[in-house]
Order: sequence, then C-alpha cells, then structure tokens
Amino acid sequence: MGDRVSRLIQGGVTSAQGFLASGVHCGVKPQKKDLTLVFSRVPAAAAGVFTTNKVKAAPVLLDMERIRSGRGQAVVLNSGNANACTGEQGMRDAREMAQLTAQTLQISEDLVYVCSTGPIGHPLPMDAIRRGIPDAARQLSADGAAAAEAILTTDTVPKTAAVQVSVGGQVITVGGMTKGAAMIHPQMATTLTVLTTDAAVALPVLQATLRRATDLSYNRITVDGNRSTNDTILLLANGESGAPEITGPGDALDAFQEALTAVAVTLAKMIVRDGEGATKMIEVTVRGAQSEEDAHRAALAIAASPLVKTALGGASPNWGRVLAAVGYSGAEIQTDRASVRIGPVLVAERGAPVGEAQALYDAVKYLAGDDIQVSVDLGLGKGEVTVWTCDLTEEYVRENAGPIT
Amino acid sequence: MGDRVSRLIQGGVTSAQGFLASGVHCGVKPQKKDLTLVFSRVPAAAAGVFTTNKVKAAPVLLDMERIRSGRGQAVVLNSGNANACTGEQGMRDAREMAQLTAQTLQISEDLVYVCSTGPIGHPLPMDAIRRGIPDAARQLSADGAAAAEAILTTDTVPKTAAVQVSVGGQVITVGGMTKGAAMIHPQMATTLTVLTTDAAVALPVLQATLRRATDLSYNRITVDGNRSTNDTILLLANGESGAPEITGPGDALDAFQEALTAVAVTLAKMIVRDGEGATKMIEVTVRGAQSEEDAHRAALAIAASPLVKTALGGASPNWGRVLAAVGYSGAEIQTDRASVRIGPVLVAERGAPVGEAQALYDAVKYLAGDDIQVSVDLGLGKGEVTVWTCDLTEEYVRENAGPIT
Repeated sequence: MGDRVSRLIQGGVTSAQGFLASGVHCGVKPQKKDLTLVFSRVPAAAAGVFTTNKVKAAPVLLDMERIRSGRGQAVVLNSGNANACTGEQGMRDAREMAQLTAQTLQISEDLVYVCSTGPIGHPLPMDAIRRGIPDAARQLSADGAAAAEAILTTDTVPKTAAVQVSVGGQVITVGGMTKGAAMIHPQMATTLTVLTTDAAVALPVLQATLRRATDLSYNRITVDGNRSTNDTILLLANGESGAPEITGPGDALDAFQEALTAVAVTLAKMIVRDGEGATKMIEVTVRGAQSEEDAHRAALAIAASPLVKTALGGASPNWGRVLAAVGYSGAEIQTDRASVRIGPVLVAERGAPVGEAQALYDAVKYLAGDDIQVSVDLGLGKGEVTVWTCDLTEEYVRENAGPIT
Repeated sequence: MGDRVSRLIQGGVTSAQGFLASGVHCGVKPQKKDLTLVFSRVPAAAAGVFTTNKVKAAPVLLDMERIRSGRGQAVVLNSGNANACTGEQGMRDAREMAQLTAQTLQISEDLVYVCSTGPIGHPLPMDAIRRGIPDAARQLSADGAAAAEAILTTDTVPKTAAVQVSVGGQVITVGGMTKGAAMIHPQMATTLTVLTTDAAVALPVLQATLRRATDLSYNRITVDGNRSTNDTILLLANGESGAPEITGPGDALDAFQEALTAVAVTLAKMIVRDGEGATKMIEVTVRGAQSEEDAHRAALAIAASPLVKTALGGASPNWGRVLAAVGYSGAEIQTDRASVRIGPVLVAERGAPVGEAQALYDAVKYLAGDDIQVSVDLGLGKGEVTVWTCDLTEEYVRENAGPIT
C-alpha cells in the first residue's frame, strides 16, 4: 500500500470536487421526496454496471445505450415508480426525463442518465416528473443529503459514503449514494447507486475499476435472492481534483481502486443492514474452498438460505443448515473435512458436532448480538470469500405481503 | 389411453398386495410417533431417487450403496433426527438400524433401507431406536395410517395416496406416503417418500418410471428453495398382483407409469399444501417458452421468489414481480411478448399493464381464494411446464426462527 493514506470521510455523492446534487418531492410518491439530480460542473468520463435481469426497465435500456459513449454529466433519478414493464410509453417517458433534465441544465441530452425505482408495471406520472425536474435543478447544492433521501423506497435510512485518498501529494475523493432494501442479490438487485469522483480516469480503466469494485461489494450481498429490473450503478469521474489522469497500472490506480472499492463496500453493507425487516447483519465467510468461485458459491448459498437466515434471526446456532446450504451450492464439499464457527465458537468439526454443550451455549449467547459472523472452513484448498446478508424476520413478510409497493 | 381404467383410491403404502406397515413412538421425539416400518411379504424389485445435496446424511449414503442390488424388502424410517452431519458414528448407527430391522423381520440385511428426517447434527438416540424396531415389527398391519404419521416432522397432516389401474383385466395398485413441510425444492428436499406396488416390473424399467414420476412431481414443487441432506424416494415392486412382469414399452408400462406418476403428483402437491406456514396452494404455469427447459426454469423462479410468494399470500396481484422472476431465471424472455394471468384475469399483455382497473379488482378478488393459479405466456415457442408452491407467510418465519428443529 506504500505511503498512501486513505480515509473514510463524512459525505456522499457531492463530496468530490465539482459535483452538485438535490432531492425534491414532485408527486410520484404521495408525500416523501421522490426526485434526485446529480450534476457535474464539467462533462465527466462515465462507466456503468446494469442488472443482468432480462426484463429491463426503460431507463436501464436507455442508460445501457448511452453509456457506450463513455461520457456523462448528470443523472436524474426517481423513486416511487420503476418505469418497468411499461412498454413503448415507458421508453418515451424515460427519454423525456433525460430531455427535460438536459434542457433545464443546458447540457447535451446524451450526457444525461436516468434511473427509476419502485413498483413495476405502472406508467410514470409524467406531470409530476415535469414539475419536479426544474425544481430539482434550482435546488442543486454541494449538500448531498436530500439527493440520497429522494432515491429511497422501503429503505429506512439514507445511505452515503465517501473516501479520500492521497497519492503523491494529490488528494482525490470518491463519494456515492445508494438505495436498496428488498430484491437484493448478486448480479444485482433493486439498488440504484451513483458514484462520483474528481479523479481523472481513462475510460477503459474506469470501467474496469467499477467492475472490480462491484464484484467485491454489490455482488457479495444478498437480501432475498431476487434480481431486479432496474439495478444500476453509475460512476462519473470529472477530473476536477487536478490530479494527473490515471491511464493504467501504478500507485495512482491502486489508490483509486482502493477508494472506489471502500465506498462501494460501505454502501453495499449499509443496504444489507437496512434489509427489509432485518435486525441483524450477517457476515458469511467460506475459506478452504477448492477455488474462489467455489467459496463464492458456497457463501452465497448460505447467505441466501431462508432456513439459515431465520435460524440466525432467532439466535439458533443451527450449523447443520449451514453445511446443507454448502451441499446444494454446487461447491465441492467433503463433509468430513468441513468445520463451522458461529462467531468465535467452533460448533462443528469434520462435519460433525463438537459435542460440547458449552459450545452451543456460547454460540446462542453470541447470536444475541446484532453483528453476526458465520464461517465455514471446507478444508480443501485456498478459496476464500466473504459475503453479507441479514436475517429473515416476520417483518420482511409483512412488508412484502401488502398492497403493491 | 385405450380402455385403461385408473382411479385414485383411499389408501397409502399398504394398499398394494403383500405390503404391511406400522408406526410407533420410540423416544426420538418426546411424545409423537417417530419410527416407521414398511415390509413386503416377499423380496421386491427396488428403485430409488436420492438428494443431489453433496452433504448426504448417513442413511442416504447407506441406501445409495444398497440400491445397486435392485432389491429390497423393508424400509425403516425415523423422524425427529436426520442422522446427518454425524460423522462415522452416524454411519454405524444407520447400519445398526438396518441390522436390527433385518434380525427382527428375519430377512437379509441387504434388503433393508433406512431413512431419517429431523434436525441435522445430532447423534441418533440409539437406545430409543433399539427399543422401537421390535415394537414396530410387532405392530405391522395392512393399515398404513400410523406409518404415515410416524414419519412427519413439522407437517401438520399425514400424506398418503393410492391408485389402482386395470390393464387387460389385471388390477395393479400403486400406493405411497410422504412427508415434507420445509426444505422443499426441486432436485429434492427434506422429503421422505416410500412408494409400493404389487406390479411386477423389471429393474431398468422400474428405475426409469420412478425417475419420470419424480421429474413430474417432486421436481416441480418448491417451498423455500432448499435441498436437504436426507431426501429419499424409494419404490418397492413386489409382483404380488399376479399381473405379468412389465419388461418394456406397451400398454402395461403406460398404465403403470400413469398410476405411479398420479400417486407421486398427489403426494407432492400435498407437501406444498402443507408447507410451513402456508395458507394458499399456488400453481404456476409458464407456456410459450422457447423450450420445456426454459419453461421449467421460469416457472421455478416464479415459484421460489419470496417477493412473489409474499405478494400472493397478501392477495396482491403484483405481476411485475412475476415477470422480474422470469427475467433472472435464465429463460429467454422478450418483455414485449409476455403476458400474465392471475387465475382467469389477464393483468399484463405485451409486458405492460392491461390498464383496466376492473382487471386489478378481479385479480384481487380472485386472490382471496386458497387455490391460486398464475400463468405466464412468453409468446416465444411451445415450452410449457406447471409447478406448485405455497405462499410465504409470517408463520414460516416463526416456525424456522425457533430452537433447532
């Protein structure tokens, strides 16, 4: 890591130089803020990661087309309506959102990205959006709080993070905001994320660093195994820090990657902590796997298992369900080599219980906490991956059984 | 189907000629029945389907070895303990269960199969089992009710079915019992199933018909996406009907396959209807898929989605979640060709809402019922598959958050 200094700072999508943002209520939702703008003073390099769901919302289709240019200057986001499964009208509405934003900000339409989140299958209330965009433009400021608030759906708290890193005397900042709640799963889930940085980064490098940061963050969390129609992660790099452009391998790239990954991991963990109905943050580590892919598969199977998630929510150290999940994950496992720890407590060794009442007692006591670690050692190789999830509670069911949200 | 007559009869694992069964309480569970014997008067042809989970319980490992002989005469099953993740001791205990059963029934040990279901990771209380086996042998009778009761775990009702079919004047009977509740998912789930028939069936044919019946029943149900360590389906064919041996294609094989599939589908649907916390039976049909594999993938993704299952449980016609599930299933979908029906009500067409308040009203009204059908037409080809699931309720979470069960 050399003499690099990297630190988490208070902040978010406006922490990097040259970015403004705002969040307003325009009427997509009955009362809460529902429209966000993010704006870079100058055109920026842009990279994106989009849902792998084959049913893609209109704004996702628009952004995927637009991101090919590698450039962007503004993002307009609404909550309260996903503009997904809305046919031709949905595409027209997404395009109009971009046009209105471009007109209002007096920039080229090609530089505007659109994100939507909320219920699927309802036409976007465009009257509200048309009122909201000029309003949001008037309120652009260096305070990103309202912006982070206006993208929320069933989230209970806004989610922002920022990291500063200094390389060779130059300080660059990476910041961002995200929303999540339900439908969270690897290869993405209803999460909208906007990341901004004042680093100058050449386009292929920018896309690669975003991909890497996503793999280590959003692709390692799961709330309920669903992948949404709208997931989007956008990264704008406007170069306003004045630091030299990052064009390839070296200290500067390492520093930027580290900062970007730190912001993405922080945001992704905030999503899990705020999962619908969640009361516990659960970190699942699988080590000793035959490969990293196997470790990833096994860890996600554990983290996505409703039986594991309900057991841990109920403070029950049911390690048998943990090994059973590995067994159907596709990862190689030889039961008689596998061990399981609940926090620091070894509860199973060589695929069988350690047989000490004390261990179960200690594990139950440990599970009373809010931050739970579960680790499995497969004893087969060097593959190791950590993923994050939350417990599954009755509240999750209540939230999702109600009228369409 | 010719002049074949096939009918569902009252009955279960003892309906076919020459089979006896019993179920007793031996002490694995505190109070309820927990030990079952199934016994054929004469050695029978035997076929089996076992869990694909790589973490296999001791009795599964034993049965998989034993089934290679293609013969069997008795099955001993316990509930209240899975004998899974129990190491070498677990294998010794499973073998002892088989030995004791063979001694008591005075048959060859090779002809005895063992099944266990219950919590994972606890040594089997062999004192109880040792007391129970002779007791169960004394109580063998042509009444299969106690046998079906003693294999239950969190199930609320025993599950049995039987079908008689007559071919060329000969009547053959297929009967069976099953248990399920949680951990139900294709490629199997904590389900123990014993099927019996008095047909005489050559071994390769027997295994193929069981495989086909399983594909159309147990591989089409899902409760919570888990596959267990203990899933076992055993089929014994003892030839006691006196009907000629079925050795290859023809009317007799068709009749047998039809009866076996009918019993398996009936039992599998009983499992879904009795899913933990379930209040509704949900039948998901995907048609118009590019292939049958695609239809199967899409239908299972819908049926396994907690967002879909909670919405339907809450009588919310959230068809967007249905299409979103198809989108991440791996099946080909072109959103603008897809339509969704909730029961008879068309709610989405060409990937967009039908836009009639009446349709949503009708769908909500329909969802008040207990038997729900959801169908998707992908408009791409001829692939069609139906699967079954249940709703996801707060009760599921309550049942699984408690102490280890």
